[in-house]
Amino acid sequence: MTLHFKQVAIVGVGLIGGSLGMVLKRDADADCIIGVGRRVGNLRTAVQMGAIDRYVEDPVDAVAGADLVVLATPVDSYAHHLKAWADRLQPEAIVTDVGSVKGPLVAQAEAFMPEGAHFVGAHPIAGREKTGVAAGSVDLFRQARCILTPTVRTNPQALERVRTMWEVAGSVVSTMDPFVHDHVLGAVSHLPHVAAYALINALLDVQTRSASAVDLLSFSGGGLRDTTRIAASSPEMWRDIFLWNRQKLCEFIDVYVQQLQQLKRCIETGDGSAIEKELERAKQARERLN
Amino acid sequence: MTLHFKQVAIVGVGLIGGSLGMVLKRDADADCIIGVGRRVGNLRTAVQMGAIDRYVEDPVDAVAGADLVVLATPVDSYAHHLKAWADRLQPEAIVTDVGSVKGPLVAQAEAFMPEGAHFVGAHPIAGREKTGVAAGSVDLFRQARCILTPTVRTNPQALERVRTMWEVAGSVVSTMDPFVHDHVLGAVSHLPHVAAYALINALLDVQTRSASAVDLLSFSGGGLRDTTRIAASSPEMWRDIFLWNRQKLCEFIDVYVQQLQQLKRCIETGDGSAIEKELERAKQARERLN
Repeated sequence: MTLHFKQVAIVGVGLIGGSLGMVLKRDADADCIIGVGRRVGNLRTAVQMGAIDRYVEDPVDAVAGADLVVLATPVDSYAHHLKAWADRLQPEAIVTDVGSVKGPLVAQAEAFMPEGAHFVGAHPIAGREKTGVAAGSVDLFRQARCILTPTVRTNPQALERVRTMWEVAGSVVSTMDPFVHDHVLGAVSHLPHVAAYALINALLDVQTRSASAVDLLSFSGGGLRDTTRIAASSPEMWRDIFLWNRQKLCEFIDVYVQQLQQLKRCIETGDGSAIEKELERAKQARERLN
Repeated sequence: MTLHFKQVAIVGVGLIGGSLGMVLKRDADADCIIGVGRRVGNLRTAVQMGAIDRYVEDPVDAVAGADLVVLATPVDSYAHHLKAWADRLQPEAIVTDVGSVKGPLVAQAEAFMPEGAHFVGAHPIAGREKTGVAAGSVDLFRQARCILTPTVRTNPQALERVRTMWEVAGSVVSTMDPFVHDHVLGAVSHLPHVAAYALINALLDVQTRSASAVDLLSFSGGGLRDTTRIAASSPEMWRDIFLWNRQKLCEFIDVYVQQLQQLKRCIETGDGSAIEKELERAKQARERLN
């Protein structure tokens, strides 16, 4: 797999954008990787860590001559960014992203592409409770899944180049319709985040309502720590993901609440065999994840 | 801290009972540690691993001459066990347990104690998604919390000996009213288990209801894996814990469902600042757990 780019623009040099820059610097034949971001300190770190060659203030200066643009900013800002520079893309330029929601965002990005430029939606599924390029690594995507979300409008050659890039990063690449992606990720990623954030807030509520002065969280064990680890993720990023996938997510929250209420009914009525059956069903499915 | 026992009986030589046996063998001056259990293969492993000196079939043979009896069986079986041998306890014998529910069980165990014998409730908070003595370790309780649950009926000397035992095991020991224990652990341990089991089952439901053939769980990342790790715990054990703490637990499930529904309303109505506020509140509390 060979991969050559004349000029790569990475718009948003955070954990994901920065780590992808490191991969491109190490494994791709890229003449120049230019970072675009708001925080100069972070961009300097990105240069030191070998994620980008240099950075510019005005995204147009990075995008205009690029044959690859990686949009790695929060999903809610896509329209703002594309509006600012999409019409400056050169013919055959590829724009790809790394966002956690795809359906409405891919459609939006495609609409911004000028004649001859190609958008390819991508979602590397890599750990994200830390943020910033300083937490990045050339190995972040190794053995992680990456989902590409082509549509009828996607250019096949552009799709293949993006696929090669993620294979070079060590990812297990698959393709999926953008809306199927949001169904799948809504279930296996967005819902668990809702579950974790709400669980911590439920404990804070129990603490507030309780007459007892005992500090609940100080008695937590490994179970609570694991169950709520992802509740330390970026509120700003997850707010946007929740909003952009709101329909699916609300549907799945309903399914989750139904499960909780069903289990509660079994507990309330003392139906031990029904409880055990539910827990056994979950345990067996969970063991497939290991 | 010196700890001497003439004869220790460990009834239920699983992960917790077995690991405690290893601690007593290494650090206490115990003339003899006798295991009682149903599975001979497991008891043989316990001898090989240095958790017990020998084992007997009839619990009376282990309990009759013991000055310490560790009841380390599922909480639902306490009455069955105590009925079988409590009247054979010698004067000044201490019976202690390791169960995850305390309130009603401590009261029950105290009622079984003959004149002169002492019950001390204890709950070491140690990882339990694995079971059996083979997963045990002399270090299992190191730096873990252990909660003792004395009542007005608890003998102060017996309480101190049990406290010393858990300090020798390396635990951070605290004391709490048995019903306060069930409030605290219901919130920080039992509710997260309900949340994890129900989350996996919700995903199975989404999978079943969905027209898509995509195998949802094959797209899970580290987030789902962590969030549901404890759903691989023993269904039998957690069934009993849920039932014995049913009142508190059902109350907490209601609080959790309220939190989920509140977050869902914010997502549904597109109230980004309310979502971010909820997530920020959770993130700040979660960071205290690290």
